Amino acid sequence: MDETSRFKLTVVDHALRLFAEKGYEATTVDEIAEAAGISRRTFFRQFRSKEDVVFADHEAQLAQAEAFLGAATGDPWDAVCEAVVGVFERFSQTRELAARRYRVVRQVAALRDREIVTVFRYERLFTDYLRSRVAGVDDLALIQFTAAVTATHNYLLRRMVRGRSEASPGDLRAALAAIPRLGRESAGELVVAVFPRDMPPGRIADLLAHRLGNL
Amino acid sequence: MDETSRFKLTVVDHALRLFAEKGYEATTVDEIAEAAGISRRTFFRQFRSKEDVVFADHEAQLAQAEAFLGAATGDPWDAVCEAVVGVFERFSQTRELAARRYRVVRQVAALRDREIVTVFRYERLFTDYLRSRVAGVDDLALIQFTAAVTATHNYLLRRMVRGRSEASPGDLRAALAAIPRLGRESAGELVVAVFPRDMPPGRIADLLAHRLGNL
Repeated sequence: MDETSRFKLTVVDHALRLFAEKGYEATTVDEIAEAAGISRRTFFRQFRSKEDVVFADHEAQLAQAEAFLGAATGDPWDAVCEAVVGVFERFSQTRELAARRYRVVRQVAALRDREIVTVFRYERLFTDYLRSRVAGVDDLALIQFTAAVTATHNYLLRRMVRGRSEASPGDLRAALAAIPRLGRESAGELVVAVFPRDMPPGRIADLLAHRLGNL
Repeated sequence: MDETSRFKLTVVDHALRLFAEKGYEATTVDEIAEAAGISRRTFFRQFRSKEDVVFADHEAQLAQAEAFLGAATGDPWDAVCEAVVGVFERFSQTRELAARRYRVVRQVAALRDREIVTVFRYERLFTDYLRSRVAGVDDLALIQFTAAVTATHNYLLRRMVRGRSEASPGDLRAALAAIPRLGRESAGELVVAVFPRDMPPGRIADLLAHRLGNL
């Protein structure tokens, strides 16, 4: 983490503490600036608004994930999973801050909405990256993969900040590895179709047609 | 569709046409009311704001999907897929309106954000429903399923309103059927593990542990 990011994180830390103590609406930018020992002008050089402070670390995370993917050279599907694990690891390191954010966000409808929009940006980043790196893969397979990957990360992160789980980055990695990559190139892959014994033949036909259409 | 819904849809239709012609910001509620032949007061009895008009049919869709799930009696995973197909079918029937909305929404950042939040409500509806109906299934499997299901629907819907796809409800049904239900009860199911020949043993072990942990 560079100097600017560390500085921003200190301000974020003070702001979230004040939001938790006094409420989000009741806390002014002047109070945040005073608590962080900076001027109002310096605050607005770093953040566009009070709301931006709440999501500043997401912005940093998104930038880091994008940089990671830009430099990745191996299997693109693995790269997306590793980018996600990287985000999770960094949130684990600033767990108290993430937990405090969670408690503030869930009480303010506008912040909850903004969080949903922010989370969606990770999904779009991963989709755009995969599209640019894998050829000949059904776009739907790609979309399903990034949706499941992002949802998995968010689920484990939410449990962590609520103190309901001690999931490690390794647990996340295993959960991500279990997400199928339907569009994966089939070289050297043996396809075995497995269905519940009671599945209707029509559905089996649909599944097979779809699966084989992707290979 | 009941009388009130049909009436609302007429107002939505006029509003989206005006937004497309004059721009969203430049169009006033008075202009919408006049075009729809209703009073300002009647408008505000149906919609809380100008923004609400844009997403009114999503509200109706969500209510219908919720009612469908509430009445569904068969396999809960199938019920979610059928609820999604129902939403898609209804959007197909008002395709011009959905296409006009798409063109308006993509030009206004606030509306794009609101759409992301709206879309997320479907995902949460499906997750809550599945949680209430299936027992003993890993929550993660459930989350991954509803994320992939919702993303699949949104992808095909977006292509439809952009005029880039003629995907039918049957195509959507097949694409949804291909999404694995990892947490599915294993009674009568034969498990065969299939991996690419070049997969590292560590990753195979992770995948097996995760998959078997869910059964």
